[in-house]
Amino acid sequence: MTQVWLNGALVQADEARIDPADRGFLLGDGAFETMACQRGEIRRWPRHRARLDRALQALDIPRLDAAELEHGAQTLCQSLGLKRAVVRLTVSRGAMGGGMQATGAVSPTVLITARPLPDRPKTLSARIVPDARRDGRNLSSQHKLTGYADMLGARRTAQRAGADIALVLSSDGHLSSADSANLFWVRGGTVFTPALSCGCLPGTARAALLDALREQRVEVCEGEYAPSALETADWGFVTNAVMGLTPIVSVDGDAMTPPDADLALFRAVCEAAA
Amino acid sequence: MTQVWLNGALVQADEARIDPADRGFLLGDGAFETMACQRGEIRRWPRHRARLDRALQALDIPRLDAAELEHGAQTLCQSLGLKRAVVRLTVSRGAMGGGMQATGAVSPTVLITARPLPDRPKTLSARIVPDARRDGRNLSSQHKLTGYADMLGARRTAQRAGADIALVLSSDGHLSSADSANLFWVRGGTVFTPALSCGCLPGTARAALLDALREQRVEVCEGEYAPSALETADWGFVTNAVMGLTPIVSVDGDAMTPPDADLALFRAVCEAAA
Repeated sequence: MTQVWLNGALVQADEARIDPADRGFLLGDGAFETMACQRGEIRRWPRHRARLDRALQALDIPRLDAAELEHGAQTLCQSLGLKRAVVRLTVSRGAMGGGMQATGAVSPTVLITARPLPDRPKTLSARIVPDARRDGRNLSSQHKLTGYADMLGARRTAQRAGADIALVLSSDGHLSSADSANLFWVRGGTVFTPALSCGCLPGTARAALLDALREQRVEVCEGEYAPSALETADWGFVTNAVMGLTPIVSVDGDAMTPPDADLALFRAVCEAAA
Repeated sequence: MTQVWLNGALVQADEARIDPADRGFLLGDGAFETMACQRGEIRRWPRHRARLDRALQALDIPRLDAAELEHGAQTLCQSLGLKRAVVRLTVSRGAMGGGMQATGAVSPTVLITARPLPDRPKTLSARIVPDARRDGRNLSSQHKLTGYADMLGARRTAQRAGADIALVLSSDGHLSSADSANLFWVRGGTVFTPALSCGCLPGTARAALLDALREQRVEVCEGEYAPSALETADWGFVTNAVMGLTPIVSVDGDAMTPPDADLALFRAVCEAAA
């Protein structure tokens, strides 16, 4: 990261300054989007900007001009010479006085960073981490807020156990999502995924894939499922905006084999989904 | 805030810089303590530093030297000429590369800020906000992590309804805590407070008060209680490190009257508790 876009301007990264009084730093009082960007085009930008809008509304942070954000991301990628990038757009309430009860005027901090799009993992092994729970009633489940400590902790636990990613549960014990991706599995041609009531983030790739599958008349079930549902699945995968669709090859050490033809088909549908 | 203590040195606040790659800002990957400081002495410092130690251990962030932190807080208060201050100590994992999966070496960010100790509110009105849920299994309930968006949202909801603070529930519907304080109520001489399993933060004032009450042979019950328990309470109060003990005078508009003698007694016990 040699340059960033901060509050409307391109800035050298080592000169870019977040104020120590920024409520994003102090209280996780902000939201973000992580997006894939190719040749200046942000993948599924309308979905990302709509989700950010909803998050800012929920946080009572003034709405931002979408065209300016898009311009900032494009300018940054161009300046960094990145044809294929991961772009992260972070918005916090900005620097304010007071403690939890903020004082003073709101002037949001808008930070855009970009790095080369990493190679996608071919497969992922997963571990169910039952001590990290998501609750669909919380703002932090409904919106992509910056407070990720529970998911980061779940991933550490999964990785200590030798897996790549964590699968986490809802407060009432249903499957919710992966630590940084939405979860899907297939059984007998039907696609299953946890409902948003299970506390999973409303992922942009998730929504795009569900729309595309329904258009193609694939049966899709969103619901509340026990972890044991994965034991009887034919195969499973996760999605997010950067990785796209990635198959899960094991859950808690039990192998799960994605059929080549199915995987290719679903990946193609996901890639094509707007 | 004209000066802060940042990474071991006193710095002018407007020159203090948090790196935009700081995981505290990007992912709420950090913990904090908010403490009352009087004439250079941090109130209940051993409890605060022990809680911070546990949080850093849970986050897998290297432990910090407690004496250095105390020295930083004292130097800052002295430099700012603050005899009675709110001192906030924030520790994040620091600036790193990568996305959720961090890359590079960990070099924690340590920020200490101080502001004049505000006048304590005499009383607080409370509103139960059922859409903000805490889960005792989560790191973010067990430790004072910087991701406070759900509690900030609960407070906005309570204040929109005309109350001062929010009371929030556990994922399974029991009373948990106030948005930024622990919750207590008294009935027939017995003191009740939600157990840590209800997702309330292990508050330093809470622990000090419970220890002191038990020493004085007051009956104390920590457990799982429905919100209706407040309807039959004689009176109630909240505690935190900055406000001390503050009585609640209404819950969802229903008045609750703290008896003067009881309030004075409990406040004195709380103030004296180490």
